[in-house]
Amino acid sequence: MMTLSQIKVNTDLKALNNEIAAQNKEKLHSCGILTVDVLGSPGSGKTTLLENILPELAAKCRVAVIEGDLATENDAQRIAKTGVKAVQINTNGGCHLDAKMIERQFDNIDLENTDVLVIENVGNLVCPVSFALGEDLRIVVLSTAEGEDKPLKYPTAMLKTDAVVVSKTDIAGYVSVSTEKLIENIKTVNPDVKIFTAGKTDGEYRAEGLVDYIIEARKNLK
Amino acid sequence: MMTLSQIKVNTDLKALNNEIAAQNKEKLHSCGILTVDVLGSPGSGKTTLLENILPELAAKCRVAVIEGDLATENDAQRIAKTGVKAVQINTNGGCHLDAKMIERQFDNIDLENTDVLVIENVGNLVCPVSFALGEDLRIVVLSTAEGEDKPLKYPTAMLKTDAVVVSKTDIAGYVSVSTEKLIENIKTVNPDVKIFTAGKTDGEYRAEGLVDYIIEARKNLK
Repeated sequence: MMTLSQIKVNTDLKALNNEIAAQNKEKLHSCGILTVDVLGSPGSGKTTLLENILPELAAKCRVAVIEGDLATENDAQRIAKTGVKAVQINTNGGCHLDAKMIERQFDNIDLENTDVLVIENVGNLVCPVSFALGEDLRIVVLSTAEGEDKPLKYPTAMLKTDAVVVSKTDIAGYVSVSTEKLIENIKTVNPDVKIFTAGKTDGEYRAEGLVDYIIEARKNLK
Repeated sequence: MMTLSQIKVNTDLKALNNEIAAQNKEKLHSCGILTVDVLGSPGSGKTTLLENILPELAAKCRVAVIEGDLATENDAQRIAKTGVKAVQINTNGGCHLDAKMIERQFDNIDLENTDVLVIENVGNLVCPVSFALGEDLRIVVLSTAEGEDKPLKYPTAMLKTDAVVVSKTDIAGYVSVSTEKLIENIKTVNPDVKIFTAGKTDGEYRAEGLVDYIIEARKNLK
């Protein structure tokens, strides 16, 4: 459907976004901040993951959170309950966050007293992948409930990320999914990606190694 | 981030898409075909729903299926196993099907001998909502695994549809979701939308009333 001129506009939009993302990154680095973009489908478990890792992360460094959603303040309120300050962006129907939306929040975040900025993107396994925000790390959350085949069907999300968190491992059996097979499919698409698992074990939520991974990346920033 | 001129292009793209969608609809109606656009998040259970209702639907009328995905032919192959012919569109990373992609498939479908055309859109709860394909009915599939709050967080998908299928009702308990609360949230956003449930009961998949709903819509087409 695209004509050449339309593709040009699309390319220009992304180029403009990349430019602002680069400025964001420079600004954030100048404050010593590591930025993490967390993305995944609606209901993949992004907010639940953050609720569970933020207390440990906040005990090790100073954290701020930006929550992106089409509508509602629900997620920022959920995060605030962990004791970490969260600001909410509503895209009013928009399918992804963009670098300009992040830049606009800089006045609402105490950048001088932040070590790690976590951004939870809009629930969407496709569009956010194409829009840099200024992040140092990208983490894709993929739940077992989405099915074993999703890495193969959404390869770009697997390729353009630093890490994948396979979430809801505790319900894999109920949705007839093998977590091992799902991880194998992720590795088929991207053999180099870092893979974590997250879910409840004996009633307790665990995301083994993820906080250390973020802390380590923050150390390597300098 | 959008400037006025960029918004204009975006509007023109959608206007162009709407024009082709209207042509598609006219063409399909001239062949007596009811077209159903099925959309929802990755892993919401769209293909599983189709696999389960197609045998009953195909017993009552002549059905063709278009499968939309970013990559792979997996879903068309899954559908073909039900005995219903399916053609696959790969968007190569694109976040939604558009009307032109559907028009291009008309030569690959036996339109003269089809009563119902089912289109499974790309897994995405946001973008496909904005792109008409020429459909008469839109059905959004929303799984319990996505969480009770999703109708409130993705209101456009609830508003711009004829029906919502709440899927994976059998695992609601394992993901601490109340199907009733989820349905209540759908009704809060759109009191007029038709709601169905789908999932396994005693090991057997059921989507009570959905086939009759489609057959009835086909009858009312004339």
